[in-house]
Amino acid sequence: MAVLLQEKSAFFTDGRYTLQAAQEVPPCYEIHNSADIAASQWLAEECSENASIAYDPWLMTEQQLRPYREAAIALTPLTSNPIDSLWKNRPAASRAEAVLHPIEFSGCDAEVKIEAVIADCQAKSLDAFLLTAPDSICWLLNIRGGDVDHTPLLLGYALLGCDGKITLLTEESKIPPTIRHLFGDRLSVMPLEKSVESIKEASYQRIGVDISSCPIALMEAVGDTRLLRGTDPCILPKALKNDVEQQGARNAHIRDGVALTEFLHWVENTTASGKEITELECSKKLIELRSKQAHFKEPSFESIVGFAGNGAIVHYRVTEESNRSIKGDGLLLVDSGGQYRDGTTDVTRTIAIGNPTEEHKTCYTRVLKGHIALARALFPTGTTGAQIDTLARNALWQIGLDYDHGTGHGVGSYLGVHEGPQGISKRSHNIALQPGMIVSNEPGYYQTDAFGIRIESLILITASSIPSEKPFLCSETLTCAPLSPQLIDAALLDDAEKKWLYEYHHWVQEKLSSALPEATRDWLAAIVKQFEAMAI
Amino acid sequence: MAVLLQEKSAFFTDGRYTLQAAQEVPPCYEIHNSADIAASQWLAEECSENASIAYDPWLMTEQQLRPYREAAIALTPLTSNPIDSLWKNRPAASRAEAVLHPIEFSGCDAEVKIEAVIADCQAKSLDAFLLTAPDSICWLLNIRGGDVDHTPLLLGYALLGCDGKITLLTEESKIPPTIRHLFGDRLSVMPLEKSVESIKEASYQRIGVDISSCPIALMEAVGDTRLLRGTDPCILPKALKNDVEQQGARNAHIRDGVALTEFLHWVENTTASGKEITELECSKKLIELRSKQAHFKEPSFESIVGFAGNGAIVHYRVTEESNRSIKGDGLLLVDSGGQYRDGTTDVTRTIAIGNPTEEHKTCYTRVLKGHIALARALFPTGTTGAQIDTLARNALWQIGLDYDHGTGHGVGSYLGVHEGPQGISKRSHNIALQPGMIVSNEPGYYQTDAFGIRIESLILITASSIPSEKPFLCSETLTCAPLSPQLIDAALLDDAEKKWLYEYHHWVQEKLSSALPEATRDWLAAIVKQFEAMAI
Repeated sequence: MAVLLQEKSAFFTDGRYTLQAAQEVPPCYEIHNSADIAASQWLAEECSENASIAYDPWLMTEQQLRPYREAAIALTPLTSNPIDSLWKNRPAASRAEAVLHPIEFSGCDAEVKIEAVIADCQAKSLDAFLLTAPDSICWLLNIRGGDVDHTPLLLGYALLGCDGKITLLTEESKIPPTIRHLFGDRLSVMPLEKSVESIKEASYQRIGVDISSCPIALMEAVGDTRLLRGTDPCILPKALKNDVEQQGARNAHIRDGVALTEFLHWVENTTASGKEITELECSKKLIELRSKQAHFKEPSFESIVGFAGNGAIVHYRVTEESNRSIKGDGLLLVDSGGQYRDGTTDVTRTIAIGNPTEEHKTCYTRVLKGHIALARALFPTGTTGAQIDTLARNALWQIGLDYDHGTGHGVGSYLGVHEGPQGISKRSHNIALQPGMIVSNEPGYYQTDAFGIRIESLILITASSIPSEKPFLCSETLTCAPLSPQLIDAALLDDAEKKWLYEYHHWVQEKLSSALPEATRDWLAAIVKQFEAMAI
Repeated sequence: MAVLLQEKSAFFTDGRYTLQAAQEVPPCYEIHNSADIAASQWLAEECSENASIAYDPWLMTEQQLRPYREAAIALTPLTSNPIDSLWKNRPAASRAEAVLHPIEFSGCDAEVKIEAVIADCQAKSLDAFLLTAPDSICWLLNIRGGDVDHTPLLLGYALLGCDGKITLLTEESKIPPTIRHLFGDRLSVMPLEKSVESIKEASYQRIGVDISSCPIALMEAVGDTRLLRGTDPCILPKALKNDVEQQGARNAHIRDGVALTEFLHWVENTTASGKEITELECSKKLIELRSKQAHFKEPSFESIVGFAGNGAIVHYRVTEESNRSIKGDGLLLVDSGGQYRDGTTDVTRTIAIGNPTEEHKTCYTRVLKGHIALARALFPTGTTGAQIDTLARNALWQIGLDYDHGTGHGVGSYLGVHEGPQGISKRSHNIALQPGMIVSNEPGYYQTDAFGIRIESLILITASSIPSEKPFLCSETLTCAPLSPQLIDAALLDDAEKKWLYEYHHWVQEKLSSALPEATRDWLAAIVKQFEAMAI
């Protein structure tokens, strides 16, 4: 979030990006961690009493505006955004056609989803819901688009009527006949520029709107008399993966594990042989290896490959300028993922280049203890991500360390690599974890300018079979790629942790070996042997 | 909370009281766990569309009414409460005089507190704050009353003006000349019946009100044009105990530990000798032993002494009807505390009568692991009670067990044994724990009709001296009384837990021995030896 006043300007971001912001944002901006001071608070302190602050009503939601309103800041919506007119050589918008996401990957017919969502809206006495999250629309209609890098989204809005009619507001040329025919009469496609008009003209009396995703401009099109605030009815069912999506996720993670394990072996081999490689080369190698896997579409985000101090920048993206040679002793953090048509992956492994220090090992092992605590956690139904977040931090806290990001985010099914409503962080205290949710398990530790450690696997929340008075949940780790035995101080692990490590790697070996090149298979076998020795 | 309709009625309580409610509430009431269905939700479902629901505006706050308003229930305040007129032989209200709480216990002059609270109100552009929580008023004025059993409260309200004037709304005869002289002109005392009138007549333009404690009747007296909603400005400073209060708490806990240790020894001795005792006799013995301690005023709540199945009723209070003989094999849960002029105590110990079963030991040990995890926890500044609540549950969760109450509540300084704003439960996600807060650490496990286990000590939040990038907090256990080695399965404990247990008991012995009768001193020494052996 950036705020520009006449005399001064400020840039706000969270703990994941403050280091990067200091490097990349022009010096005329003050840089603030939004956890320390929110933009609204800064503005309340800095702007004069009679100031009027302009904003783009297509870029802000009611939820985003709330703190400004509460701080009694006068806000003025603009009819056009001045940055749009200043932005020269702006890349053209995507014109990619949407495609159907077939039943063998979605596991549920769009008609069935639509009827269920309509029933939910009717139970809330709504006549329609204005869907303003592109991933909700793609999930509901079983379609995928090509409008955004790394996520197969079709951009637009959709008005879903409880009469069964769907008005899709998007670039009309993006919707091919296959999709139009499938939905027949119930679907009408209107151009984005006519969104306000279409919504104004719709005949529904009670229209649901989610204030966390609906632009102010569209809320005004709905108008106060028709508008009912509520949660996007697709968000929760989208998060609860059905059996086909769960199996798809398992399959995608095994193929992704093959690519990542080949990558990890390649890095170790290449650096050990004295050949110099760079962070950029690693990023390219990851794409090359994933591209060989079935159903791979694209990376699920721009890979984070950070060596030594670059690894401490939580959401680091290597550029030609920052690109670093991976040589000498240090830690290499690699956070990457793939969009496969049967599932979305997101995985982080941290490996030692050369000889790790004792500090590296202590920190890696404590991050690992947190990762294992979460992977092994059993918890009663009704538990939120905020409650189990602590399990991932406690081993670090015990020696005065912590990390300045959440422990986990929801992940879609060939959709967003970040999706709600669930999460594992101190802010996730409203949503109980439920079977079928996929969420990341990614504790870390970062020492500015020195090194970064993160261990991330995706986990699937499942019902536990443990005998108990009330239902308990647990998780199944989906991510299938080895950890780094040479970074582990086994003296810090208890027996249950060592057993988990061995069993996990035994499972990784079982799932990957047949698909790995022989040398990589042997390399993985040697790793499994090390974990076996550790567990005895 | 009870709701009475023409045709049916319902009683709502939380998980601590549902078992007890089923035994004690007349059968014409449906009994509900308020976590499953709130009274507002039940009412919305059960009452007819045009129903008007009456309530007593002196017994309800805006916060309590909010869910009813959100459920669109028509609410009508009553001018008199029909239960008052039906209640025959109602005990007369207390006429106890208030007393000064001297500086050797309060550690801070009332004038200093008043100036600080006024400065806080002025920073929020208020002209006055209407204090509606009796413990806030007692804390602010360094006075204590005798209006409520177990808590030294003076009942009433106070209007604190930023001009330094205080209007105390209470029974005038309760305020003796000592208190009137101390505050001189700044204090005026008005009878409770004149509260509405006094507040209406007050000349302040902007009056702060805390909607969590202010009765609707007084909010209406303030009136919309003058009313500003905000947090009671005494709550946080009252929770942050100063050095004198902290030292007072330590001293009170040692004297309380002497009484409790004598009690535990007496129970073990008496039951082992074959003499039968009852829950009621235990309650009386606790009062008798605490009464011998300096500065003891009264129990801080009615003791919970529950043998076998009675121990599973979380907030059980023994009566002549429920009173049970403590004999045979079973667990005895004793939760009790004292109001000492230098501090308030609250402690639970669970002891084995006869031979404990393996299940008793497993459950006790896992409750203990949670208790130790919280006692040993280190966590960064900013961490809330909701975040560390999980540490106390995890060992139980791992075998499919849990407890249906929070892990900890704030405790006052010769004030409420429950006080805010802090707590340790999944609901405590707004308030960061801070140095000087006292909070209970009381995980438990309950098996209906069989046994109850709870281990409770009070802990004082303190700054940690661990080297760390950001400030870390930890806690000091205040409660000073032995645990039950015969209920521990040492195989479930790790080395750090055993070390904590030995160090804790070594400290208990050091603090208590000189004040214990010889036989009890020897008994305690034998317990410490068992923990020493366990730790080697």
